[in-house]
Amino acid sequence: MIAEIISIGEELLIGQTTNSNASWLASRLNRLGIPVYRISDIADDPGQILEMLGLASERADLVLVTGGLGPTRDDVTKTAICQFFNCRMVTDPAVESDNELFFRKRGLEMNELNRRQSLVPEGARVIRNPYGTAPGLWFEREGKLLVFMPGVPHEMKHMVEDHLEAYLKARFAGNHIIHRTILTQGIGESFLAEKISDWEDQLPDHIRLAYLPSPGVVKLRLSAAGPDEAFLKKSMDEAEEVLRNLIPQYIWGRDDERLEEVVGQMLAKAGKSLATAESCTGGHIAAKITGIPGCSAWFRGSVVAYSNQVKHELLNVPNEMISRFGAVSREVAEAMALGARERLHADWSVAVSGIAGPDGGSPEKPVGTVWIAVSGADVTESKLHQFGDTRERNIVRAGVAALGMLKKLLDKRGGQTNW
Amino acid sequence: MIAEIISIGEELLIGQTTNSNASWLASRLNRLGIPVYRISDIADDPGQILEMLGLASERADLVLVTGGLGPTRDDVTKTAICQFFNCRMVTDPAVESDNELFFRKRGLEMNELNRRQSLVPEGARVIRNPYGTAPGLWFEREGKLLVFMPGVPHEMKHMVEDHLEAYLKARFAGNHIIHRTILTQGIGESFLAEKISDWEDQLPDHIRLAYLPSPGVVKLRLSAAGPDEAFLKKSMDEAEEVLRNLIPQYIWGRDDERLEEVVGQMLAKAGKSLATAESCTGGHIAAKITGIPGCSAWFRGSVVAYSNQVKHELLNVPNEMISRFGAVSREVAEAMALGARERLHADWSVAVSGIAGPDGGSPEKPVGTVWIAVSGADVTESKLHQFGDTRERNIVRAGVAALGMLKKLLDKRGGQTNW
Repeated sequence: MIAEIISIGEELLIGQTTNSNASWLASRLNRLGIPVYRISDIADDPGQILEMLGLASERADLVLVTGGLGPTRDDVTKTAICQFFNCRMVTDPAVESDNELFFRKRGLEMNELNRRQSLVPEGARVIRNPYGTAPGLWFEREGKLLVFMPGVPHEMKHMVEDHLEAYLKARFAGNHIIHRTILTQGIGESFLAEKISDWEDQLPDHIRLAYLPSPGVVKLRLSAAGPDEAFLKKSMDEAEEVLRNLIPQYIWGRDDERLEEVVGQMLAKAGKSLATAESCTGGHIAAKITGIPGCSAWFRGSVVAYSNQVKHELLNVPNEMISRFGAVSREVAEAMALGARERLHADWSVAVSGIAGPDGGSPEKPVGTVWIAVSGADVTESKLHQFGDTRERNIVRAGVAALGMLKKLLDKRGGQTNW
Repeated sequence: MIAEIISIGEELLIGQTTNSNASWLASRLNRLGIPVYRISDIADDPGQILEMLGLASERADLVLVTGGLGPTRDDVTKTAICQFFNCRMVTDPAVESDNELFFRKRGLEMNELNRRQSLVPEGARVIRNPYGTAPGLWFEREGKLLVFMPGVPHEMKHMVEDHLEAYLKARFAGNHIIHRTILTQGIGESFLAEKISDWEDQLPDHIRLAYLPSPGVVKLRLSAAGPDEAFLKKSMDEAEEVLRNLIPQYIWGRDDERLEEVVGQMLAKAGKSLATAESCTGGHIAAKITGIPGCSAWFRGSVVAYSNQVKHELLNVPNEMISRFGAVSREVAEAMALGARERLHADWSVAVSGIAGPDGGSPEKPVGTVWIAVSGADVTESKLHQFGDTRERNIVRAGVAALGMLKKLLDKRGGQTNW
């Protein structure tokens, strides 16, 4: 029982758009125990669409297609569907009235392009689209299921969550795929591999391991497949437990957890609050934190201090300190952390001051030099990092390192009742 | 003369990783005039790798493959290469000494996995990797070029930029593909399509148009292909000029330009500075801005005011105002903007206060309600937006709307000498 994903759109083949639809769909199918055999990105071209539909529906039982259903002329998927199934286009009255309502609610007049959106290939089961004007199209032929959805991510996602998932769950039940990802920080891929080599050797045959490095973080993904879900889960739990005992100092989370989320849960549980003072990360850490729903319970805010004047006036960093040690220094990072706690009335703070690049480096402080400080009521710690030469990676790595440092300090408090 | 891209890695097929390598490679190939026929994501499986290598090297003249060259056991690409070319693995002395240096410089001992990285398929031309331990592998066979690179994005990118591009430019010269993307904001896709329908009708046959909607922004991509680059450029210029005259109020940029970059250039040119005051966007706008190298010339910083106390103390918003009108109100957004200008010593500011969701909405102010204010020396403007119900999209759309609003105000100043 396998699936294929076809992503239609020239924006993918010219590299203008990264195919996040395919990865989202793949993760959803995996949760349902349906492995994805292949993902193919092809052009908005009826010939190519026909060819791929033929190949994919031969190899797979389920074919999910996104893209090319929009109202504009470059959208040709419906034409290709009609050729593939040898059918004609008909007006769907439900889609027609949905779309009329869609525009009326927004106080907009429909134009001819909008009206044509209610034409669908005859024989298609229609998935209605409350978030846009292109319906999804659902075909069952000779035991295969083919579903066509718009390429606009949130429209596609709602169709999958609201219509497709329940059906697939019922229809494709039986096999199970379980993944578990252990998230590490503070050690490179090959050294991690060496440290856990014996553990890897002793993994049972039905569990596979993959290493996924990204800036500042190495993820270890365990995968297991089989008919007995409880057995898979149990052997996964056992493998994870051994690993956690082996390298506790590097593990900070699991699966889709985000470091900022893990830290937030620790703070929320202890009734403590956080603020950030950011120079070279420029709000990146605050933006990561505020991406978490409900973070206002423990996050006070941030001062993004891109000028020394702001460091002085809003974070209490003495001007003499900046001129004596430089803005990128242990002293200034610690003073920023202290100032953030005071001025934003937070129990804890992280502060980052560094040189993200590409400019601003010197022989003593090259691009990638970053001081990070963490401060709490009775502790201030700081650390010098030497990251690389890419601005974007330096910002991301500094964010991971700052939150990782905070987590380690909070971990130590975990056993105490009063912090 | 066409290319295919093969991305190897189970993380792609289970949806853990979005395939940004393929889109980056596709954009680079396009600049060189080499169209990408297909992008295929396949598993770390020697059989599948062999099959795809066969198919792709039949259809395309150039096959770029990423992934599966790492030191850990899930990496099997080199094994598949040896099967495909019927060759054995040999130690490459250059790679061996590179890798020894790589570890010595970092003060680390090499382990067995690291040492095995210098084994390469016999007959491969090696692309050395100063950023990691897996070399790139380059094969020319029967007029086809196959290049295998690591899946770690920055290692792969350096190989392309430092080695592959110059070669491809020389070898595949002749055809030209030109893309131009016009960036719009403030109008939906179908209404834009209607407004520019006559212009679309009159486009010459060799220019194609595609609509790319994303949160807050619709991109119009023009593509043209042919042997005469000057002719393509000229007809593209003409098409763009007509479009710019048709919808000047919606166009803010072109190609890879970012709105924050366009705004920053305007500010830098006029010698003016910017600060942000962010509640629901939580530092997202500051992080976008500070993603731009050199922004410290015109960006002062940001106060991320996630609590009312911070709005009051660091942005001078009167407590009575917050309790009377609520934190999400015209009054508070304007006061935040004013406070940001004063406290961060900036000429201009944008302020955002809203309800990003999923919680915090009410019948009067549902999730997605966002007030945005822009303030300059002699002007303060504010606007109420009603975005949707997705936290992430609301944050992104608020950022686009805030910067778009600032740009419109700066546009008006463009003609004046003293602002």
